[in-house]
Amino acid sequence: MKGTLFVVSGPSGVGKTSIINSIIDKIDNVVFSVSCTTRPPRPGEVDGVDYFFVTEEKFLEMVQNSEFLEWAKVHGNLYGTPKKFVFENIDKGNKIILDIDVQGALQVKKNYDDAVFIFVAPPSYQVLKDRLLKRGTESPEALLKRLNNAKWELSKMIEFDYLIVNDDLEKSIQIMKSIIIGESYRTKRVLTEELIKNLFKGVSDR
Amino acid sequence: MKGTLFVVSGPSGVGKTSIINSIIDKIDNVVFSVSCTTRPPRPGEVDGVDYFFVTEEKFLEMVQNSEFLEWAKVHGNLYGTPKKFVFENIDKGNKIILDIDVQGALQVKKNYDDAVFIFVAPPSYQVLKDRLLKRGTESPEALLKRLNNAKWELSKMIEFDYLIVNDDLEKSIQIMKSIIIGESYRTKRVLTEELIKNLFKGVSDR
Repeated sequence: MKGTLFVVSGPSGVGKTSIINSIIDKIDNVVFSVSCTTRPPRPGEVDGVDYFFVTEEKFLEMVQNSEFLEWAKVHGNLYGTPKKFVFENIDKGNKIILDIDVQGALQVKKNYDDAVFIFVAPPSYQVLKDRLLKRGTESPEALLKRLNNAKWELSKMIEFDYLIVNDDLEKSIQIMKSIIIGESYRTKRVLTEELIKNLFKGVSDR
Repeated sequence: MKGTLFVVSGPSGVGKTSIINSIIDKIDNVVFSVSCTTRPPRPGEVDGVDYFFVTEEKFLEMVQNSEFLEWAKVHGNLYGTPKKFVFENIDKGNKIILDIDVQGALQVKKNYDDAVFIFVAPPSYQVLKDRLLKRGTESPEALLKRLNNAKWELSKMIEFDYLIVNDDLEKSIQIMKSIIIGESYRTKRVLTEELIKNLFKGVSDR
């Protein structure tokens, strides 16, 4: 059985990371996508586990060689999703989860539309606003930017294959789990040459 | 949320009906498709529950008016899946399960490709043969016909969206359940005008 890339996206504050973290040990063969970054490692971070840490020179070389499914500059550092890691895990039959903002998800879609795109939406824009205000971790300017960005992001949900309205975390976890398991049984992923061989073993053509 | 038609098919003896019967009370809003037939009701059968019982004249009129998703003649009686029942339940947001042979499923696909097509396969042709032999309910002629038919049916699995190899009933039930719940959250089914209205309530365009 071939693996699958699941791209999970939505506005920040919508709760997508909580959903993903809860399903990771409920499904077999699930791995998180590991990004490349030019940001220096923080204490305790392990290369190849938290990130692949690379120099800016190496990163730009990888960009030139189309080695990323998507990449972006954030606060002066470069971040990207390497194709190699994703495709190697697909060959191993793994389910790879990529937790990413909407802009990044749409970039992935352009480069690899065999992935499964899942949008997590808030019950309403107002609920999202309240959640972000309650967090209280940001400057008013950053908060306003996030809220404005959220409007644009919500307008892009139509581009995604699946839509989960996160009004109940437990329910959303169940839905995400069902989508990931269900999608793994798409005929195009299950039907390998080996399966056909096993199926028709000993059958004559007469 | 809009409902969905799930067409579940596969060779006879593969165990698809056992799988379906086990999930029916594990998922909300699931209904079985009710067929039309010209066969007379058996004792205890209720019109509109087990079948819609109609005269041959009425059935042929419905065929002429394209009122069936598929229909066929079996042992001299006519059977068909009425669009009206299916579409009314889709409007109600229900998940409709249609348990049907492969030929019928392919007819449905021609008429309504927004349905989800699930193929249940045996682990191998040999296992299917053994199961049918063990049943021992048929004449040798009928058995041979079924086995020959199964070869043709297996060759059609590629036409289906999902493929479940039924080598473990409990596992197959879990997969079927995941497919049915997951597919219900496709963006095209979730994203209604009402949802958009709720989402953006109170948001100004400035």
